[in-house]
Amino acid sequence: MSEIETASAFTPRFGPDGLITCVTVAAKDGAVLMVAHMNAEALRLTLETGIVHYWSRSRQALWRKGDTSGQTQRLQELRVDCDQDAVLALVEVGGDGGACHTGRRSCFYRRVSGADLEFLVP
Amino acid sequence: MSEIETASAFTPRFGPDGLITCVTVAAKDGAVLMVAHMNAEALRLTLETGIVHYWSRSRQALWRKGDTSGQTQRLQELRVDCDQDAVLALVEVGGDGGACHTGRRSCFYRRVSGADLEFLVP
Repeated sequence: MSEIETASAFTPRFGPDGLITCVTVAAKDGAVLMVAHMNAEALRLTLETGIVHYWSRSRQALWRKGDTSGQTQRLQELRVDCDQDAVLALVEVGGDGGACHTGRRSCFYRRVSGADLEFLVP
Repeated sequence: MSEIETASAFTPRFGPDGLITCVTVAAKDGAVLMVAHMNAEALRLTLETGIVHYWSRSRQALWRKGDTSGQTQRLQELRVDCDQDAVLALVEVGGDGGACHTGRRSCFYRRVSGADLEFLVP
């Protein structure tokens, strides 16, 4: 068993791009809302402020979730995986309760069916 | 709204490393089990065989989950996110019911508490 898996110290492992993957779920029911990325600053700010911050790869900018959409995410709990290269954020969602910029609650609103996608939410 | 978010075609967007992030949850209760990566071949084999395949970044090899551990993952449903750069796999877990190579059900068995980690599962 490698040391990082049994460690009681939080030593997140950022990738070559300086980012760690974050899976964000609703604290109240565990629904997977989105997958995004954090750099060290976003992770630090998330833990310090209790408001979830990400790093936007498309905009190459720090992104405090909800600043423009109102869909804030208040951190309830942060978990880390065995090899400490991914985190799981349990959040309480503000605004309209959504996490996806399309207006839906979750970004995972389509199911793969062969080469097609079926919409689970219109 | 960009076209990829409203599309009914599955056009997964792999990163510069050829990989897409996969969040794997238990179909029966939605628990987040693990985060891993798939290359195009792993994704294709997952859909074709119904048995989840990943790409192991540490071993740089295709990885049919469960081959050595017995912790197979039978795909119940695959979802894709708004910008099609992450997938969500709903699975039924074989073997001992775990997904983590440490023997635990989920890889997210530790909670961040300041600079420390608290074990949620011994």
